[in-house]
Amino acid sequence: LAAVRSDQPLITLTTDFGINDNYVGIIKGIILHLNPKARIIDISHSVPPFDIGAGRYLLETSYRDFPSGTIHLAIIDPGVGTKRKAILLETPEFFFIGPDNGLLSFLPGKQIRRVFSVSSEKYFLREISSTFHGRDIFAPVAAYLSMGVSPAEFGPEMRSINRPRYRRYEKVGGRWTGRIIYIDRFGNLVTSFKGEDLPDRAFHIYIGDRDIGGLRRTFGSVRHGNAVGYINSFGYLEIAVNRGSAAELFGFDRRKPPKILIAPVHGGY
Amino acid sequence: LAAVRSDQPLITLTTDFGINDNYVGIIKGIILHLNPKARIIDISHSVPPFDIGAGRYLLETSYRDFPSGTIHLAIIDPGVGTKRKAILLETPEFFFIGPDNGLLSFLPGKQIRRVFSVSSEKYFLREISSTFHGRDIFAPVAAYLSMGVSPAEFGPEMRSINRPRYRRYEKVGGRWTGRIIYIDRFGNLVTSFKGEDLPDRAFHIYIGDRDIGGLRRTFGSVRHGNAVGYINSFGYLEIAVNRGSAAELFGFDRRKPPKILIAPVHGGY
Amino acid sequence: LAAVRSDQPLITLTTDFGINDNYVGIIKGIILHLNPKARIIDISHSVPPFDIGAGRYLLETSYRDFPSGTIHLAIIDPGVGTKRKAILLETPEFFFIGPDNGLLSFLPGKQIRRVFSVSSEKYFLREISSTFHGRDIFAPVAAYLSMGVSPAEFGPEMRSINRPRYRRYEKVGGRWTGRIIYIDRFGNLVTSFKGEDLPDRAFHIYIGDRDIGGLRRTFGSVRHGNAVGYINSFGYLEIAVNRGSAAELFGFDRRKPPKILIAPVHGGY
Repeated sequence: LAAVRSDQPLITLTTDFGINDNYVGIIKGIILHLNPKARIIDISHSVPPFDIGAGRYLLETSYRDFPSGTIHLAIIDPGVGTKRKAILLETPEFFFIGPDNGLLSFLPGKQIRRVFSVSSEKYFLREISSTFHGRDIFAPVAAYLSMGVSPAEFGPEMRSINRPRYRRYEKVGGRWTGRIIYIDRFGNLVTSFKGEDLPDRAFHIYIGDRDIGGLRRTFGSVRHGNAVGYINSFGYLEIAVNRGSAAELFGFDRRKPPKILIAPVHGGY
Repeated sequence: LAAVRSDQPLITLTTDFGINDNYVGIIKGIILHLNPKARIIDISHSVPPFDIGAGRYLLETSYRDFPSGTIHLAIIDPGVGTKRKAILLETPEFFFIGPDNGLLSFLPGKQIRRVFSVSSEKYFLREISSTFHGRDIFAPVAAYLSMGVSPAEFGPEMRSINRPRYRRYEKVGGRWTGRIIYIDRFGNLVTSFKGEDLPDRAFHIYIGDRDIGGLRRTFGSVRHGNAVGYINSFGYLEIAVNRGSAAELFGFDRRKPPKILIAPVHGGY
Repeated sequence: LAAVRSDQPLITLTTDFGINDNYVGIIKGIILHLNPKARIIDISHSVPPFDIGAGRYLLETSYRDFPSGTIHLAIIDPGVGTKRKAILLETPEFFFIGPDNGLLSFLPGKQIRRVFSVSSEKYFLREISSTFHGRDIFAPVAAYLSMGVSPAEFGPEMRSINRPRYRRYEKVGGRWTGRIIYIDRFGNLVTSFKGEDLPDRAFHIYIGDRDIGGLRRTFGSVRHGNAVGYINSFGYLEIAVNRGSAAELFGFDRRKPPKILIAPVHGGY
């Protein structure tokens, strides 16, 4: 991809702006103002405010389902108005635009072809506010990119992106310790474990100190009201309650989330 | 309709996925991936989880307002991963796709031209998860249908669809007993009675044992804060509080919903 | 503008319908039924029920960001079914459609070229309900306007619109007293003061009787958890808590909202 070439370029949005206010509508207005041919699809605007990890999960698990050439614009940006950079990232199939705060760090280095620091003011709105770069910088940059402006036009190339130290789990004394990275609409708890992280031997899953048994195929594998762990449709270990809410059952508190443990059933620990 | 022919085929979505997560965005991504010309309109994604009756109400009261040829995709699917069938239904004006669990049973048999069991795997995504058929089956099937694939291609024709025993009301001892089928954003209580079900003689409406008087023309017919029953803009008997919330006033509890009674004013019961 | 001429006319929606129900989907269905080429963008559907002031704020701060020729349809309509008028308003750049209840009164008279009373029933749906003019009147009128019907076709020209007495603030005894007009997703409190209303001399901002200090540049100017006043990206004085919620910190109660005071620091009051 040197530039976007489609007749109806697609731009997706992933933000923590919510849908109550007019922030999302404004971003769409700016994009369509500059490029009336653009099509805009919402991935989510309900990322918990400032929760970079949740935004990363939602984008990581959906970006591949869009057509080749899609521009993914992601704005969870607690550092807006500070010196954090805005970046434009190019892979063989997609473009990504967002703040350089780890939101896009799910992309492995080998998948990234080029990264640019978005800094060329000629593609920004004339006046830049301190609080709404979504409108003033990100929306027009996405629009101009969708009109065929070459990525290199937006600013100097960078050697690497900001990759916060991030481990899916730690292994200590024969157990694997992970955490909850996302809670969905059904109260399902998505953990930081991927299917490939789990041991070959039989194991049990613990939420804090509560044993919910071994891995199952789906939430329908247990009775109504019972907790169950399974690999969700995105490849992550997820904990659900059949026809209920795991977040409710386990009294999930966002400020003090329980650890997730994986321990072999006949372990020597 | 033998197949969809429009240049910009329209697909509507009615689901219980909520809009916080990326499920809806993914479905749109898959559809546009396969058919970039499709246009997608949300009817609602906030059907209460697994509430087939609420989903049926929302679709029944809106599908006719869309252009002829529209494909209505509806996914409230507590049985995902079990043996329930997916169906594609054809009426003279529209297509409907969804699980065969009663969600589409508002369509009278005489309106249905053909029904097909959606089972031809060549129109599914290559890997089928146990929990997200919206992405893996329903989205691609809707996309291929919108591209002109003939309905009969998706699987064998069926003789009938699943119609859960469903009565709008029962008449016992001179009273009609119905129930609440939907609560809207304003706290209005939609009942199972249609205008045509109501008696010709004067009657009062009761929520549980609370008499809210006779039928009025609209919620503006009573004072602020007062309860009122009227035929809503979809033909159903609805109970509202003028500039207030009937759900709040009557302390509605979803697990123990009150019955709705209709009783003649000078009845002999 | 004599009429809309675009190939893909844009219609925005600002309502208090919420997104749980099918009201918004139905409006889109009607518009696309009549004009399949229309594009529809949501500004917000989560205006608090019947809150005309909040709707006015959301539309006032976003309408200019859309392309010239855009039709802005706004429906916050507590008087639906009464004698309030529906209006179609034309400015040099945009069209506005909505009830004549103050919702559009942010437009200064000199910006308005013409106003029409929407009353020509040939552009309405055949049957008009008492409760859902969004579907029966506003949606088809917006659709026909987007198809090139001349504004004057929809009804007689009016001399003026309804402008509720509305002051951004009052000045009494050396202090300026304003109020909270909107609360956003982050719990930020938007006040009725615009930047241009504020005094040149040093001043402090008070929420009720709590002093939150002078004006800052952005919410990042104070420590996490501290309150701060700044001019938001729309030009209004806004009160926020850095990485927190001002609505929570100040225990905001919609029925008894605190006054906002501006008082000079070395004042003689």
